[in-house]
Amino acid sequence: MGEFELIRRYFSPLAGQSRAASLVLGPGDDCAIERVAPGNELVFSVDTLVEGGHFPAGYNPEHLGWRSLAVAASDLAAMGAQPVCFTLALTLPEASPEWLEHFSRGLSRASRAFGLELAGGDTTRGPLTLTLQVHGEVPAGGAILRSGAAEDDYVCVSGTLGEAGAALDYLDAVSPSEDEQAVLERYHAPVPRLDLGMALQGLASAAIDISDGLLADLGHILEASGVGAQLDPRAVPVSSAVARLKGEEEALRLALEAGDDYELCVAVPRGAWDSLPDTVRTQLTIIGKVVSGSGITGIEAAPVAGGYDHFGSK
Amino acid sequence: MGEFELIRRYFSPLAGQSRAASLVLGPGDDCAIERVAPGNELVFSVDTLVEGGHFPAGYNPEHLGWRSLAVAASDLAAMGAQPVCFTLALTLPEASPEWLEHFSRGLSRASRAFGLELAGGDTTRGPLTLTLQVHGEVPAGGAILRSGAAEDDYVCVSGTLGEAGAALDYLDAVSPSEDEQAVLERYHAPVPRLDLGMALQGLASAAIDISDGLLADLGHILEASGVGAQLDPRAVPVSSAVARLKGEEEALRLALEAGDDYELCVAVPRGAWDSLPDTVRTQLTIIGKVVSGSGITGIEAAPVAGGYDHFGSK
Repeated sequence: MGEFELIRRYFSPLAGQSRAASLVLGPGDDCAIERVAPGNELVFSVDTLVEGGHFPAGYNPEHLGWRSLAVAASDLAAMGAQPVCFTLALTLPEASPEWLEHFSRGLSRASRAFGLELAGGDTTRGPLTLTLQVHGEVPAGGAILRSGAAEDDYVCVSGTLGEAGAALDYLDAVSPSEDEQAVLERYHAPVPRLDLGMALQGLASAAIDISDGLLADLGHILEASGVGAQLDPRAVPVSSAVARLKGEEEALRLALEAGDDYELCVAVPRGAWDSLPDTVRTQLTIIGKVVSGSGITGIEAAPVAGGYDHFGSK
Repeated sequence: MGEFELIRRYFSPLAGQSRAASLVLGPGDDCAIERVAPGNELVFSVDTLVEGGHFPAGYNPEHLGWRSLAVAASDLAAMGAQPVCFTLALTLPEASPEWLEHFSRGLSRASRAFGLELAGGDTTRGPLTLTLQVHGEVPAGGAILRSGAAEDDYVCVSGTLGEAGAALDYLDAVSPSEDEQAVLERYHAPVPRLDLGMALQGLASAAIDISDGLLADLGHILEASGVGAQLDPRAVPVSSAVARLKGEEEALRLALEAGDDYELCVAVPRGAWDSLPDTVRTQLTIIGKVVSGSGITGIEAAPVAGGYDHFGSK
């Protein structure tokens, strides 16, 4: 069996598994073909992960498969988009059957979990690098942009923050404790807030996913919206596992500055907050409000990007 | 100026330069947004180029900028799609202003020439690797697939073949001759057959772009269509420059087996051939016909992929 056949064997089950009616033609021709529903717009984002930068050398390929699609899908969540399909450009040093089996297993689980069908891709030889482009749909004009935050909106975040950042200290743990295991899970298997993003469509005034850290990513909303934010550090949803592992102060610092949690940071107008369904409101914590001006006040820490020396590729 | 600002400075002119009405939101948010015209389908393809594999180490960045988009756009040509926009995932060892200036210049020229607007991307640090995804549109059901070739169709190719393959011997030439310059131009600055592809929509029964070599790529059409082909080697449009440089026999071998020319190989039903506009027909050479069975007859050479040891990533 040639290398091409080998790779096709592992990835072909990912094509067609979600049976998205909108994917007219999947992998195998010069292009894939997608039908966007009438009245909808296509929403798409591309993310690259480089070995030794975005994930450690020798990283578990099953985790990598899940994580690479989760990271990309998180951008769809931030726009409030319904997931449709994705492409995978995979550069590999060698076509190892074992690596491919585990990688495709993790990718396949994520593909089903997120409703993203494999539409096409390219496989090349070289240093391990993955580029995934995800496609989603929104009703025309319905995408949640970074630029819509306005004075007096609530600043909210979903879930708890800082766990993926804390996990970096335990990646090599041989027998991790329960708390260590909990934060490692957040690093290895982040879950993009796709349902929450869709539920916030038409209600949130701005959104971003937290990949570089709360302060850095909220900063992108504020800059795009031409406003500032007043935060209450006591309101930031710190992870209790991280607080036990690292202490309260470091847990707050990680919640503010560490990346890779893939929660959402959203601005919600006060009027819209009251009309949020309970199932949505309970997923969000109000951590402050949008104010006139620029930048973030109420917090001492300086925004710092994640540990990887990238080019600010958010 | 930070590295992010630096990169943004070079690429921001590429966003919006073609003013595609269908690109609702370009780079800068979590996702880009595209409106597909009613009655049309989205057509997309992703291609990765790795330094040392798809292009030589230290390759001229202006050529690389043009070539990376041309290679990707060629897949749109093969589907008969109207180009719309593209994303660029660029992994760079360092953010060198000089490299970025030349790369973005080549990319910008290609972007304007092909009508492909920059919609978004990701820039990361690592070994030089480029992944481009191109988006186009076709009327619903109008894409030219690989699978439509039928018995008695003409097998045709556009332009002349073998020049990009021959160019590999002259990449380091200090003062190339006129013929050497001509073949180098084909390697450095391929021109995807976008207009021809669109003109063949509804007329060609199958199409592919020639990236891996005529025999290999025609083989993909035959396999997808469940047919064979009878070729006349004397009809293959060999490059006269290559014939002068390499002799007739080697020129034919390169025309059959070398890749990177980015011409189109198409199957055209005999009835449709007569109704092709003259401007289209003159761009094509009939090199044989589709027959029942499988594989290619009439040619001695065995299909060989290009010089790069990839994973058959066509």
